[in-house]
Formats: sequence, structure tokens, C-alpha cells
Amino acid sequence: MRQDLHDLIAGFARFGATGDGGVCRLTGTVEDKAARDRFAGEIGKRGLKLDIDGIGNMFATAMLNQASGDAVLAGSHLDSQPTGGRYDGVYGVLAALLAAETIVARAAAKPGAARRNLVVVNWTSEEGARFQPSLTGSSVFAGVQPLESALSLADGDGQTLGGALDAIGYRRTEALALTPQRYVELHIEQGARLEESATEIGIVAGAWAARKISVVFEGEASHTGPTPMPRRRDALHAAARSIEGLYDEVEQGAHASAARISVYPNSPNVVPSRVQVWFEIRHEDENVTAAIADRFLRRIDAAVAPLGVTARIAIDEKRATAALDPEGVTLAQHVAGDLGFTSTVMKTVAGHDALALQKRVPATLIFVPSRDGLSHNAREFTDPAALEKGLTVLTEMLWRLVTAP
Amino acid sequence: MRQDLHDLIAGFARFGATGDGGVCRLTGTVEDKAARDRFAGEIGKRGLKLDIDGIGNMFATAMLNQASGDAVLAGSHLDSQPTGGRYDGVYGVLAALLAAETIVARAAAKPGAARRNLVVVNWTSEEGARFQPSLTGSSVFAGVQPLESALSLADGDGQTLGGALDAIGYRRTEALALTPQRYVELHIEQGARLEESATEIGIVAGAWAARKISVVFEGEASHTGPTPMPRRRDALHAAARSIEGLYDEVEQGAHASAARISVYPNSPNVVPSRVQVWFEIRHEDENVTAAIADRFLRRIDAAVAPLGVTARIAIDEKRATAALDPEGVTLAQHVAGDLGFTSTVMKTVAGHDALALQKRVPATLIFVPSRDGLSHNAREFTDPAALEKGLTVLTEMLWRLVTAP
Repeated sequence: MRQDLHDLIAGFARFGATGDGGVCRLTGTVEDKAARDRFAGEIGKRGLKLDIDGIGNMFATAMLNQASGDAVLAGSHLDSQPTGGRYDGVYGVLAALLAAETIVARAAAKPGAARRNLVVVNWTSEEGARFQPSLTGSSVFAGVQPLESALSLADGDGQTLGGALDAIGYRRTEALALTPQRYVELHIEQGARLEESATEIGIVAGAWAARKISVVFEGEASHTGPTPMPRRRDALHAAARSIEGLYDEVEQGAHASAARISVYPNSPNVVPSRVQVWFEIRHEDENVTAAIADRFLRRIDAAVAPLGVTARIAIDEKRATAALDPEGVTLAQHVAGDLGFTSTVMKTVAGHDALALQKRVPATLIFVPSRDGLSHNAREFTDPAALEKGLTVLTEMLWRLVTAP
Repeated sequence: MRQDLHDLIAGFARFGATGDGGVCRLTGTVEDKAARDRFAGEIGKRGLKLDIDGIGNMFATAMLNQASGDAVLAGSHLDSQPTGGRYDGVYGVLAALLAAETIVARAAAKPGAARRNLVVVNWTSEEGARFQPSLTGSSVFAGVQPLESALSLADGDGQTLGGALDAIGYRRTEALALTPQRYVELHIEQGARLEESATEIGIVAGAWAARKISVVFEGEASHTGPTPMPRRRDALHAAARSIEGLYDEVEQGAHASAARISVYPNSPNVVPSRVQVWFEIRHEDENVTAAIADRFLRRIDAAVAPLGVTARIAIDEKRATAALDPEGVTLAQHVAGDLGFTSTVMKTVAGHDALALQKRVPATLIFVPSRDGLSHNAREFTDPAALEKGLTVLTEMLWRLVTAP
């Protein structure tokens, strides 16, 4: 029984606790600061060295081999959705911390065994809940998002990510001195395939394609009472029609959503003049997401014109399907098999920091089962024994990676 | 040319100016305070006595007959929609102020002519933009809304109307000492019937019925990526379907809208778990609004159940058709005719303070044309000559009311 793991998870679930078992720990808030402060404390307790970079990523370095300038990285994120669970992200950070503790002890017991160093990471703003898009800290680290553009991302109230990080004291300039060689991330599945197939460990070979389109509908403000119906140009009516249209276009096997909306002026007595909706389309095959998106955008144009409303694309983010490092998949299969766990190779639908990291270094993503596939929900749950199996796999995998010739 | 009227309107349009010709002057904001402060200054300049009651209504009393305890009231409101124009409400308050100035002079020139007093009023929170429902100050004054419940109305951020009035120093306890006998309100039409029929003065005989229903849709939060489509319980999908459903149910001659929406958690990566929509249905005949509402509510229940979402009614406000005082209609017709203006008797679709006042004293509502029928919009416009005609009618009507035997 790894009581240390369960105690840490329970401890971090207090930061931003929503009272129903879940957490709301948005990037750059006092709740995020509280979790980061505690993480910094846990890093210090274990004798690791803390560095915080320009986008607030936190690096905890275990120097296992002073002669090496290389490091294996492992981690995930401490931020959450507004309706977040206790495991999404935080599990991967804390498991990496405990794995590092074990590996430091093993390395001390076997001098010379470790050939490179180990770094535990908390990536900033993985969720993209307060600041869009998501995967921000890991994308900056991977060199695929410029630091300045990331710092200038604004939340719904116009505050920037840079300002929010400054406000909690987590924007610094301590770039990681070691050269990252590999990245490993442990995460709950957020789907039900492991549970349905009674498999203990999921090894992620790649990711679905995603198309994220934010559309602005422009109509005209007028009085909801006397304005004759044919004279109205109602942007919310157009948005509602487009949301229904999205689901009509989604074919079998694809996932789609319209989960965020901004309405102006959002007064019960004013016909809405400006509405923005954030649409997502996901599928294993990016040709399918492209085809659905094309049909959807044509449909929107046809659907809103009779309402006197225009639709324009404000953001169009195309996430291609991604492959994670194949050697990492093979290594994870071997590790799981050697430890006696059942495993399966699968794809992830959700985005993860490992997908951003893969653009810079070989990255591996390992899943444990999630009850009912439920996440971004207070009732998100993974069995404690399953959490421990994930930690065991992560620890062994990291040990092999830091000791490999 | 009544330059004083146009200068006053232009002056008040600076408070909350949105830069596009419109104003955003929500109740209890610094912009509202600025307009109230200026109004108080204009009251003092004209030697009228200012009283402010427990809901922030502002009364400017012209004592025309010290022996009388009675008063004729005239006014409207200084608050606006977020996308408000320069005339809605403020025109009626400022015209009443200038009418009072003229009547004070006339009464001084004809000692003994005035048999009762005149009070100019700014009613608090007519628009219901920040605090729902609307017509708050006038409803409290009319005795149809309890003061305590009005003070506890909360805005989208949870601040109360009472707290907001305290914050700007406009909650006091100076009840109007005089007994109100009648109320007269001058307003822009906010529809296009006067313009289309080239009529100078509209005299309102009554109001359409309105049904205002706020529905809460409850689903379940989950990840927009991996959650299988059949497992999702998407409250925004249900709301979008219901908004489309409302417009499908609206028959010829009825007006309907869904103009305000609140979405939780409103993150692009979380299936929305809770959405509230404010629906309105309006028609000249309240049997028709009831029939549309019944069909709409049955339709919602059927439409959202397959999505795993429940719909419950949070607010259901039934505004019956209302008749304004018939003697006031006749008097206004005579006044308009005597002044050589064309006039028509009509109904109002929008709510107005006069409709609330009619529940306590005989009330009269007079319209001037509104270009393109556009209001709650920065481009709201009434021709200066038309504004002056309205002021002339109001002044003459108030003079006859304060001097009548």
C-alpha cells in the first residue's frame, strides 16, 4: 500500500476543493498558487532543486550523475478544469515525484548505475480552461509556442497569463540547465476503454486529430419586445442553430462539442448582437475532421444568412494526429509485462503535455483506468490499487531510462 | 428650437458613453452615479426639492400650491441597457424636468392657477439589464414589489441591488411626502409604427402580454475529448435545441426571444453541466402567450430528454395585458389635437414604468417616433423636431393636470 501516494493526492485535492469531491484550480489563481507552493515544499523536502521558467513551468531536478548534462523528464500538470477531478494531471506530477524519491534511493544504493539525471515537472496551463489554447507550458518548453505569445494569452476578463503568473509569483527566468532526452507522463485515461477491457495499463501510441474552431456570430442589438421579428438579427439564435448543426454533421466515430459561449450584451431585453462559440471536432483520422469541419462551416453560412447574421472564423486550430515515440511504447510494454500487468496500446482522444513534448524529445504517455470514463467531473475516480500500478510502471520505466547505456 | 433639451440629452449621453453614439449605464454603477449626480445638480439649479427613497428613486418636487398635499408625477429612467441609446428613458426624465421649469414659470405668472404640485421622477432600474426583473423602482413605489425583495435582487456576480445603491450613495429613506394623483411618461416608441404611419404622437392605451420564463438545463460535466458521444449529457446542446424550438413555436404576430444565457463551467474542454436561458414570449392576447408557452415547455421536455438533460423552470413571470387610464388617453388626444399634432392610440410591446405606476395611480404614456424602430442600440435615434413635439405635448398635458379643478 503506497499510503504516501494517496495522502499526497488527498492533500492536493484540498487546493481549490469544490466541496463535492472535485477541484477548481485554474492557472494563475490563488488555488493554483497554493498547489504550487505545496509542490515546492515537497520538492524541498526531498532535496531536489527547484527551477521555474518564464512560463511558470516548475522543474524539480534529482542530480543522479553529476558528470551528465542530460535528463529524463517526467510529470504532468497541477491546474484543473473548473469542474476538475482529483486525479487529472496532479496524479502524474505526484507519481513522478514519488518515483524520483525511489530512484534517488536506488541510485544511492548502486553508485554509478545512473547515467543521467531525472527531472519532475509541473507544466503550466495544460487545461486551457482559463487561458485558451491548452498545453501552454509544455508547448513553450517544446519550442512550438513563442513565450511572448503565451504570456499575452488573455482570460475572459482580459487578464493575461503573464500577469496572472506574476500575481502569484510563478513567473521567473530559471531555464532548465540540463538537456532533456526523454519525457514520460502518467495520467488517468479519461475514457472507458481500459475499464471495459479490464486492462491495467494503457500505453499511448498516438493521438486523435482535433479541429478547434471558434466562430463569431455578428447580428444587431435591438429591443426584444417591440422589434418586429423579421427585423431582428439575433446572433444567439444563429449560434443555437449552428450548435445543433454541428451535432447533425458529426458522423459515427467522431466526437464533437460546443462547450464555451460568450454572448454580448447578454441582457434579457436586448437581441444579442455578438456571440462567440468554441467548437471542437475530433476523430482518429484527420481527413474525417477536415471533412466534417468543411461541411459544418458551409452549413453555418447557409443557416445563419436568413437570420441576417454573419459568421466568421476567429480561431481555427488544426491538431494533426500525432504519434508518440515507438521505442517508448515498446519499453513501456516490456516494463508492464515484466511487472506482471496487462497492457494495451491505444490512442488518446484528449490532448496531453506528452503530445507537446514529443515535438522536442521522444515522449511516452501511460494511462491507468478511469471509472466510467468520467473526467473533468468531481466524480472522476481511479481505484487506489490501479493508481499504485501506474506508479510502479512509471518508477521502473524511469529507472531503466536513467540507467540505460 | 429647444436647445436646452438637446443640450441636456447630449450631456447625459456622456455618462457611460460607449464611443459609438450609445451608452452603457447599468443601475448602481459609477456611470449611473454620474448621471444621477448631474440630475441632482439640474434639480437644484431649478430650485426643486430632491428626495431619494429606499430603492433609489429620485423625486424632484415643484411646490406649485403650498396648500395642496397632492402631486402629478412625470418622469422615466436614467439607467440603460449595455447597448443602450441616448433617448430610451433619459428623454422622459429630462423632458419632464424642462416641462416642470416651464410650469413653475407659468404658475408664478398666474398665481392661484395651480391646484396641485408637480414631481419629476427618475425610477431606479427600469431596464432590468443588470438586475432582473425590470421596472424595479416604479414597482416598489406602486406597492407591487416589496422593498426588501427588490433590494436583494442580485446581478450576475452576486452583488445585490441594495449593495450597489449603497455603493453609489443613492439608497436613502426620503419617501415622497405628497400624495401622487396621476403619472405621465414621455418615451421614444422603440417600434416603427409611428414612423411607418407618419404620426407625430403615440398615445398608449395598454400593453401586450408577456411571458418571461427562465429555464435551467442540468446535464453532467465530462471531458469534451474522450467521452463517448452517447455518454454525454450536454446542457448547452439541450439549450441550443430549446432556443431553436422557441422560434419554431412562435406564430405569426407573436414576438419571442432568448437573449441571456449562463453556461457552467463554460470551458472549451468540459461538456457543459448547467445552462440557464432567459426566454420571452409576447403577444397582444395573453391567451396566445399562454398557448405558445405551453407548447414550448412541452417541446423542451421532449427535446432534451434524449440528451440525458433535465429542464426545470427557475422563473415564470406572467405579465398580463394592461390598460392605461382611459381618461388620460382622451386628455392626451385633446392636447395633441389642440397643438396641431397628428396622434394615434396604440399599444406598447415593451414594458415601461407607466405600466407599473398604473397599479397605484392613473398613468399615461406618450410616444414619439423612433427611427427604424431601433432601440437598445447605439444607433437609436429620434428626430430633434419630434423630441420637441413630445416635450410640448408633455408640458401642456402636465399644465392641464396641475391646474384642473
